[in-house]
Amino acid sequence: MRCGVDVGGTTVKIGFIDNYKIIYSYSIPTNKETLFDDVLKSIKDYVDENKIYLEFIGFGLPGNVRDNIIVKLPNVGIENYDLGAKVKEYFPNIRSKSSNDANCAALGEALCDENRPNSSYFITLGTGVGGGYVYNGSVVDGVNSACGEVGHMFIDPIHNFKCACGLTGCLETVTSATGIVRVAKKYYKEFKTKIPEDMTAKDVFDAAKEKDPLGVFVLEMVSEYLGKALATFAVVVDVECFYVGGGVSKCGEILTDTIKKYYKKYCFFAVKDTKIKLAQLGNDAGMIGAAYLWK
Amino acid sequence: MRCGVDVGGTTVKIGFIDNYKIIYSYSIPTNKETLFDDVLKSIKDYVDENKIYLEFIGFGLPGNVRDNIIVKLPNVGIENYDLGAKVKEYFPNIRSKSSNDANCAALGEALCDENRPNSSYFITLGTGVGGGYVYNGSVVDGVNSACGEVGHMFIDPIHNFKCACGLTGCLETVTSATGIVRVAKKYYKEFKTKIPEDMTAKDVFDAAKEKDPLGVFVLEMVSEYLGKALATFAVVVDVECFYVGGGVSKCGEILTDTIKKYYKKYCFFAVKDTKIKLAQLGNDAGMIGAAYLWK
Repeated sequence: MRCGVDVGGTTVKIGFIDNYKIIYSYSIPTNKETLFDDVLKSIKDYVDENKIYLEFIGFGLPGNVRDNIIVKLPNVGIENYDLGAKVKEYFPNIRSKSSNDANCAALGEALCDENRPNSSYFITLGTGVGGGYVYNGSVVDGVNSACGEVGHMFIDPIHNFKCACGLTGCLETVTSATGIVRVAKKYYKEFKTKIPEDMTAKDVFDAAKEKDPLGVFVLEMVSEYLGKALATFAVVVDVECFYVGGGVSKCGEILTDTIKKYYKKYCFFAVKDTKIKLAQLGNDAGMIGAAYLWK
Repeated sequence: MRCGVDVGGTTVKIGFIDNYKIIYSYSIPTNKETLFDDVLKSIKDYVDENKIYLEFIGFGLPGNVRDNIIVKLPNVGIENYDLGAKVKEYFPNIRSKSSNDANCAALGEALCDENRPNSSYFITLGTGVGGGYVYNGSVVDGVNSACGEVGHMFIDPIHNFKCACGLTGCLETVTSATGIVRVAKKYYKEFKTKIPEDMTAKDVFDAAKEKDPLGVFVLEMVSEYLGKALATFAVVVDVECFYVGGGVSKCGEILTDTIKKYYKKYCFFAVKDTKIKLAQLGNDAGMIGAAYLWK
């Protein structure tokens, strides 16, 4: 049995996983002061009570982590923390490993896909935009643990929206949930629309499904940015499959279908058949992927 | 000893390599009909004469190749050719492996760099623009053998130059040797310049060194495209080091220095220190890299 831990800003999801299936999972609150003691105690309790043979604990963390040393988790308020040493206090003989949460989600999606691709790139569209690269069945962290930070590639020379990272024109500024709203507001007055002015990204794409002119316009624009971005990833890494996940992807295949249209427009001919799929695991992806950070 | 073979449209370079150094190398003409027989016979002669213990033969090929089966070499006119089987005719007990020539050059540059990075991305600016990705010390070919085809990422929404691949706005259309001339000609009348109208890319960058206004303008524009492209690669794969090679890079550090300026402008903060270096091996890179396709 393996244990996958997905640390979020408000809750931590903990799952016991066997053969890529969640056997048992639960959440505990993210308490900055006692976070990893809370997590490890609760794992130990479950393992002892159920006499489980645990072979591995993996952590998906919202921030920068290298070799089980946490560099920084901005939303949790933890810095320079030796997670590997902490695990050893509770489980001296169990392997553990950590990675960025988006990387873990990327691995989870790849492992639970029935085709289980050898290489894939995951992009998550939520409050921000992140991603993860799986190669040879393992997560690629990158030398600065920045592999997958594709929300901060330059994509938009037109609107020049300012990004939280300090740059302008980042993919995140036009394709995250907030980015979608930003684009819709920018063009709000140019269309006859039923979308309320204090909209969410869901309102915009729901309206697109009903053929609302502003909704359709924004869906097309956002998908063009995403199609162009995936076409770039395709020549940089040439993976078998792309996954589109995160809250925004809940609108379903209208998004991946529109992305595919623009992907075909911008992609090099040799990569034209690369699959673009909706992510399937939702909030469980990070937990499942974390459990397989060690093969 | 290892043998690296770099197949070009007019000549084939063959090198015997030991500990990353070329011990002996020579060229033979690329004769479409008898190409690989010519190459293998000549290797066999050298090995027999000099009583060499050869452990590996690697091939860098100008086109698409998968697992030692050549899919297509457009400029050589060879298709669907089982190179592995041909090698076995001459060397039944010697391993062989093939990859794209730009991938081999990428590997050669990484292996011969004194820092020998674990991960790196190479971009070659020649008649076209290509590249190669080295991860964990090995070439990444990609599922369609299209990894590194970064000349065909969309980068230029302004000029919309048509690319040989059928797309418009490709990186190659504005940063290859022909692309540089194309950009210079586009703006030729807008500057007082000493660059001749029937210029080469070398003329343009030589003029930039002399502060010729058109030369400087084109160097800045081309470097901005390249800096932007590398900043994208940095978040997609987060490598230790970028190499800039190919004929265009012969102009030297004025190019990498200008690329660095724009890289800093467009890159995500976590990857700001990634090194951008001039490739060092010139025409030998592919041959040396080919010799190490098998570790």
